[in-house]
Amino acid sequence: MPNFEPTARTQIHRCAHKASYDKAAIYQALDSIPDCTIAICDPETHLPRQMVTTHWRVGDALYIHGGIGSSFYHALKSGAPVSVSVAATDGLVLARSAFETSVNFRSVMIYGQFEVVADPAEQRVLFEAFYQHLLAGRWQEIRQPSEKELLATYLLRLPLTEVVAKLSQGMPDDKEEDLQPPSWGGVRHYVHHWGAVEEDELSHGLARPASVANL
Amino acid sequence: MPNFEPTARTQIHRCAHKASYDKAAIYQALDSIPDCTIAICDPETHLPRQMVTTHWRVGDALYIHGGIGSSFYHALKSGAPVSVSVAATDGLVLARSAFETSVNFRSVMIYGQFEVVADPAEQRVLFEAFYQHLLAGRWQEIRQPSEKELLATYLLRLPLTEVVAKLSQGMPDDKEEDLQPPSWGGVRHYVHHWGAVEEDELSHGLARPASVANL
Repeated sequence: MPNFEPTARTQIHRCAHKASYDKAAIYQALDSIPDCTIAICDPETHLPRQMVTTHWRVGDALYIHGGIGSSFYHALKSGAPVSVSVAATDGLVLARSAFETSVNFRSVMIYGQFEVVADPAEQRVLFEAFYQHLLAGRWQEIRQPSEKELLATYLLRLPLTEVVAKLSQGMPDDKEEDLQPPSWGGVRHYVHHWGAVEEDELSHGLARPASVANL
Repeated sequence: MPNFEPTARTQIHRCAHKASYDKAAIYQALDSIPDCTIAICDPETHLPRQMVTTHWRVGDALYIHGGIGSSFYHALKSGAPVSVSVAATDGLVLARSAFETSVNFRSVMIYGQFEVVADPAEQRVLFEAFYQHLLAGRWQEIRQPSEKELLATYLLRLPLTEVVAKLSQGMPDDKEEDLQPPSWGGVRHYVHHWGAVEEDELSHGLARPASVANL
C-alpha cells in the first residue's frame, strides 16, 4: 500500500515528527473512529460551516449519507471544497511539568470534493458495506431500503488522495531538569469503543439475532 | 441558567426535534467530550481548514491553547470567524429496517471569534482550571509554567453566545409495517471515558501521587 504524497496543504511544518502519510495507519484511524467533521466555506456568506456525520471507507474513498433535504448536502453536491477531520483523543500524557503535559491522539485531515453516487445498484453495495462495518451481519437481519427510501437518501464519495494524519502516542517526554528528584509520570488512557447492547421494550422475550448474540 | 437564543445560523430546519438550546445539556456535552474541531475559511485561499484540539470551558466561554508558531493560531488571533464542533457518537440504533437505523449522538456547534487572553495572571488561573478539568489535583503535583513557557503558549477564549446542539438519544423508532412479525431491536452503546493510568519507566517503584492514586 503506497503512502500518501504530501501536498502544499498536507505538509506539516509544526511538530513534523507527528505527521504521518502512512496509508495503513490512516485507514486504521478512519475505520475505528465512527464520526467525521466536514467543513465548508459557505458559498453565500463565506463563513465556515461544519457537519458531523458517521462515515465509512471502501478502498481509497470515504463515504457519507443522509437525507437529501439538507442545505449542507446541496453545497457538497455542488462540489464545495471540503476539509474532513476524523479525530480521537487517546490519552492524557501526565508529564512532570504543566508545559510538557499533552494528549495522545489520532487526527486525520482530508481535503477534496465529494461526488454523488447515484446508481442504485452501487448504492446498495456501499450501504451493505456500511452496515457490515458498523455491525457485521446486521444488514441481512433487517428490511432492505425500498426504492423510495433510496431516493430520499444521498450517498456521497470523497476520494482519498490529499490526506495527512497527526499521530501522537506515548509516554511523557520531560525535560532533564524536571526529572530530579524523581517523580511519577505516565498516561491516563481515554477509552472509546463499541460496547454492550440494550434491547428496546418491543424486544422483551425475543431471541437476539446473530449480529448481537454475543454482545 | 437561561438557554441560548437561536440565530439565523443556529436555527435548525431539519430534524428540528433534535435541536437543543439548553445551556445545561450543551455545557454537559462540552465538559465531557475532550476535543473540539475548529473550522476557518483560510483568508488567502478561501478554502476550509480545520484544527482539532483539547478544549475546556470556564463559565460562558470555551478556551484553547497551543504553541504560538502555528499559522492556524495566527488566523484565529486575527479574528477569523470560526465554527467549532464538539461531538460524540453515543450508540448505534438497531432498528428493524436499514432506513430507520441511525446513531445516538451529541453534537454542539458554536459560532464566533476567538479573543487572545494575554494577561499572565489570568492565564495561570485559566490553565489551572484546565488541569483541574482534565485531572483534579494534578496541577498541584507538577512544575508550574515558567514565564518563558507562558510566552511560547497562546491562550484563546471563545465567548459562548451563538450555540446550538443536536442531541439524539434513544431507542429505534420503527415504522408500523416493520414491527410485524415482531423482531429484535435496540441500541449498541458506544463507550468513551477516561480510563486507567499507566506509569512510565521512570516511575517504577515510585508511589502514585494523589491525583492518580485511585485510577
